Amino acid sequence: MAIRRINHVALLVDDIDQALVFWRDVLGLEVAHVEDAPDQGSIVAFLSTGDQEVELVKPTTPGTGVARYLEHRGPGLHHLCLEVDDLQECLAQLKARGVRLINTEPIVGTGGKLIAFIHPESTHGVLVELYEITGAEPLIRLDRARGLADRALAQGQAVAAGVLGFLRGLRQDGARRRRDRVNKGSGTPASSDQD
Amino acid sequence: MAIRRINHVALLVDDIDQALVFWRDVLGLEVAHVEDAPDQGSIVAFLSTGDQEVELVKPTTPGTGVARYLEHRGPGLHHLCLEVDDLQECLAQLKARGVRLINTEPIVGTGGKLIAFIHPESTHGVLVELYEITGAEPLIRLDRARGLADRALAQGQAVAAGVLGFLRGLRQDGARRRRDRVNKGSGTPASSDQD
Repeated sequence: MAIRRINHVALLVDDIDQALVFWRDVLGLEVAHVEDAPDQGSIVAFLSTGDQEVELVKPTTPGTGVARYLEHRGPGLHHLCLEVDDLQECLAQLKARGVRLINTEPIVGTGGKLIAFIHPESTHGVLVELYEITGAEPLIRLDRARGLADRALAQGQAVAAGVLGFLRGLRQDGARRRRDRVNKGSGTPASSDQD
Repeated sequence: MAIRRINHVALLVDDIDQALVFWRDVLGLEVAHVEDAPDQGSIVAFLSTGDQEVELVKPTTPGTGVARYLEHRGPGLHHLCLEVDDLQECLAQLKARGVRLINTEPIVGTGGKLIAFIHPESTHGVLVELYEITGAEPLIRLDRARGLADRALAQGQAVAAGVLGFLRGLRQDGARRRRDRVNKGSGTPASSDQD
């Protein structure tokens, strides 16, 4: 099994704004991505630590796994994400070794990546996410963050105040790039750059 | 504050051998270092994940912080270690921001590194270790692992069976390097290579 590296460490928080006071403002980590994942009952913010990230996960729907975890154990470390080359092959090997999987097949996670979770029962108590790199992730991230920006800034969806700056920046970047293209004479923004 | 990267993620375990079944044997991570830290009431094993590490921490002394944590919360994620350039400067900045520190001055941790812990109260629930790179760490690690090898293999100190292979390898490496030097005519092993 080829584990490439730690991709991110996820922290469960009850208030993204409060968490950002330490993780962004005090430590100086930059917000790299925000996304709401209604199917997972959470909103997430990724902060960059060089080649890896710290993910803040804020449950938004009562009764989900993350909401129950937060209720029982309070805010803190939640899961460890390891990057692998071939997730399907990894899962086959784990099944063959009798490892208990939460996802027996890859699912699409935040940022559009292929992911699967291993049950803490098989890892000595740690919720482990496996993550297969996909070249499309930066575009999928942009698309999803812009979707959230539209819902939050144009339609008034409630999000943490701390991520509004990031969302505004996304929309301004998009507008700037569109103006640049118009000035250069192309005039037709690609759909992935619309905001 | 310049956070360079995630250095390691530490897992609290109640049985290093059992934990190695998953983290080493199933995932294929290599044991990079083992050390007993009697002053911290634990034995630790570091597993390499590319540029970072996963640290297994097994409490050895009842009543210590890690022993109580394990007793109350069971095995699982314990702390997140972030690398910084200048720990003293970081701690000064954190103090100025009113962050609650467990160590207000750098202390010497496992592997000989300079470390300080931030209290979870200020990090939104996460025990955060800050770690300043020191060029001497590989030598200090070797020295400490050899000390443990001597105590475990020559004097019979009880350690997890899973780390005995690593300790035997260390002693064999030392013996091989000494023979190589004798064959090359130097004849006098350096003290740091004795085993």
